[in-house]
Amino acid sequence: MLAEIITIGDEILIGQTIDTNSAWLGNRLNEYGIEVIQITSINDKKSSIIKALGEAEKRADLVLMTGGLGPTKDDITKKVLAEYFECDLVYDKSALKNIQNILKRLNREILQINLDQALVPKKCIAIQNSKGTAPGMYFEENNTIYVSIPGVPYEMRAMMENDIFKRLQSKNSSYTIEHYTITVVGIPESHLATSIEHIENSLPDYIKLAYLPHLNLVRLRLSAKSIEHSVEELSKQIKEVFKQIKMIIGDSWFEGETRLSAVVGESLVTNKNTIGTIESCTGGFIASKLTEIPGSSAYFKGSLLTYAYETKVSLAKIDQNLLNEVGAVSKEVCEMMAKNAQDILEVDYCISSTGIAGPRGGTNEKPVGLVFIGLAKPDGSVMVEKCQFYGTRQQIVERTSNKALDMLRKVIKR
Amino acid sequence: MLAEIITIGDEILIGQTIDTNSAWLGNRLNEYGIEVIQITSINDKKSSIIKALGEAEKRADLVLMTGGLGPTKDDITKKVLAEYFECDLVYDKSALKNIQNILKRLNREILQINLDQALVPKKCIAIQNSKGTAPGMYFEENNTIYVSIPGVPYEMRAMMENDIFKRLQSKNSSYTIEHYTITVVGIPESHLATSIEHIENSLPDYIKLAYLPHLNLVRLRLSAKSIEHSVEELSKQIKEVFKQIKMIIGDSWFEGETRLSAVVGESLVTNKNTIGTIESCTGGFIASKLTEIPGSSAYFKGSLLTYAYETKVSLAKIDQNLLNEVGAVSKEVCEMMAKNAQDILEVDYCISSTGIAGPRGGTNEKPVGLVFIGLAKPDGSVMVEKCQFYGTRQQIVERTSNKALDMLRKVIKR
Repeated sequence: MLAEIITIGDEILIGQTIDTNSAWLGNRLNEYGIEVIQITSINDKKSSIIKALGEAEKRADLVLMTGGLGPTKDDITKKVLAEYFECDLVYDKSALKNIQNILKRLNREILQINLDQALVPKKCIAIQNSKGTAPGMYFEENNTIYVSIPGVPYEMRAMMENDIFKRLQSKNSSYTIEHYTITVVGIPESHLATSIEHIENSLPDYIKLAYLPHLNLVRLRLSAKSIEHSVEELSKQIKEVFKQIKMIIGDSWFEGETRLSAVVGESLVTNKNTIGTIESCTGGFIASKLTEIPGSSAYFKGSLLTYAYETKVSLAKIDQNLLNEVGAVSKEVCEMMAKNAQDILEVDYCISSTGIAGPRGGTNEKPVGLVFIGLAKPDGSVMVEKCQFYGTRQQIVERTSNKALDMLRKVIKR
Repeated sequence: MLAEIITIGDEILIGQTIDTNSAWLGNRLNEYGIEVIQITSINDKKSSIIKALGEAEKRADLVLMTGGLGPTKDDITKKVLAEYFECDLVYDKSALKNIQNILKRLNREILQINLDQALVPKKCIAIQNSKGTAPGMYFEENNTIYVSIPGVPYEMRAMMENDIFKRLQSKNSSYTIEHYTITVVGIPESHLATSIEHIENSLPDYIKLAYLPHLNLVRLRLSAKSIEHSVEELSKQIKEVFKQIKMIIGDSWFEGETRLSAVVGESLVTNKNTIGTIESCTGGFIASKLTEIPGSSAYFKGSLLTYAYETKVSLAKIDQNLLNEVGAVSKEVCEMMAKNAQDILEVDYCISSTGIAGPRGGTNEKPVGLVFIGLAKPDGSVMVEKCQFYGTRQQIVERTSNKALDMLRKVIKR
């Protein structure tokens, strides 16, 4: 089954909203063996919606629309769909009840524009929304499936998971598609590509290799698509290719496209180790990555964010003389931060960061992007790495976090 | 001038990469008076690229392609463009020099696939890349402008800012477009819409109002597009409408679509106040938002991330008996956290958070999403708000952060 995603709303075209929905949908549809062949973002004018529908139904078996279903006047998708499929708008009873329940729970007055969200084109199956007030719509017309759901990400996801995917699964029977991804840490894309070129060249034409660089990570994805092979065969072939790749890249990789924080979290749980951080230039970013993982309270105990000089002295007992002598952005201070915080927080591992995130504050000797990352280990030793990162303030913070978590990954693994 | 953005790459269609480039481009193009009418994401097959080019040039005066310019085999954009415009690929000298300089600076061996990135179609103007190795391309053919630039966000942005926008500006002369946005905090979208409905209804047809909800914020955007009015006239009319809206929504808004952390940061600088945080359920997220802002070291001093019970006691001197009695997620503990950390960090304002971010750990009495947020003020008093948030772990953390920063915003403003 081939799908086209249409996102409706000026906010995407003028860049006020980043389209995260399509990425999520593309990913999940693929897992159901449905290939997304195009994503089209259009404004919420009637003519644009009708034109995009007409073009998409020529290319795809499934036309999946998100957005334009809010209670406000700028949201016209529902009216346009009723016109496109030549039918009236009618109140859906379940949707009406859902709206009343939600607003009651939130202690909000029920307005007419809230109730009107229960209106749907008569020809569609109304899809209930467990997370919000706007129902979705499911149509089958002329061998094409049309789905229209809200653009609010968690509403959209819940409706897809609870309802739409099941309907699609029962309709789909086409190519076998299999993906497998590893994340490579610390090898530049071009070097990675050159070192595994001979493997890439020997791939059969139904297996494709893709490089997806993200800061200092590269996701390496093998995709197989075939009508002749079974899932098991494709999976086996892909795994064989990755076995060859892994022999070349050593331990600079981890399985899947999981977050690095999840990978280290799992190791910390397995080894029953605790962790804390003491952060300067990253301002809590590393800690917030570590605690993003459900269940992280099993290993993460706490952090000291010693952003100012004074807090480095008062909270982390960094020697004022040392600070004066070598400055906060130095190997010595980074090492002392990790060591002291390991004691103060009573943790097995402690990550420290101190650097110049920019855009201002750099000097010739200590330029923007210079970061020291420390890691205090259970045996009492501290390793420190000096890094020179490039990019914006946020990129330098993210790269520092990735590097720190990868230092931890390598140490724990052994 | 009308523009279509084409993003090239399987990674977007299968959802491995979120398309942030188009949002940025849409936003900036608009500021140059260029309207994005469609964003199309396609795979990196030759046939898809050629088809999309053909459709886009019918709709748009500017066809702006991103992606597919990496050094690896899956990146074919350049070859396809050479074929589309019927010309050869030739080495661009400046691009070649740039590649050599960058790789030398990074101390990396120069590979043939690196050098081949300097190949561009003979008919184009090569656009230099100050942040990476792949040059961009600029074509003018049959009254249409075609631009192809790398998909790596900071490379793409630098090339647009340093080169492409200047070329486009000299070509563009069409509609006057004017946007203005405020961010509304803490009023649900449907209530906002109802309370300002009469204003919306009275708008002339060349002014449009859009609602862009994001967690507990709603961005409210007025867009005017006209061939008859000057920028000044449109700007004046938009401001007049917003004046009416602001009279209705009181102080629950701030200018622009700036980040809340930037808004409070500015107030902290103006009032010469310092701030710190003590965070439990948000795990450093509030601190990392505050320090995301360049120059935040002027007011942000540090934080205690007291995730575990023990660190609440050891770092923040929270009374062990109180913890046993009322639990960590309680008004009393939240208040004591803010007060104690204000003293320990020696700051004017101190934000505290304690709650249950989920997905596990909730009880009937203290369900997932229950969060207490505290704010210690310069006069020594502490305000605490009890909130019940909904959504995923990450959403609850973000909502807590937004709410906390908004509490601060309201208090400082007065």
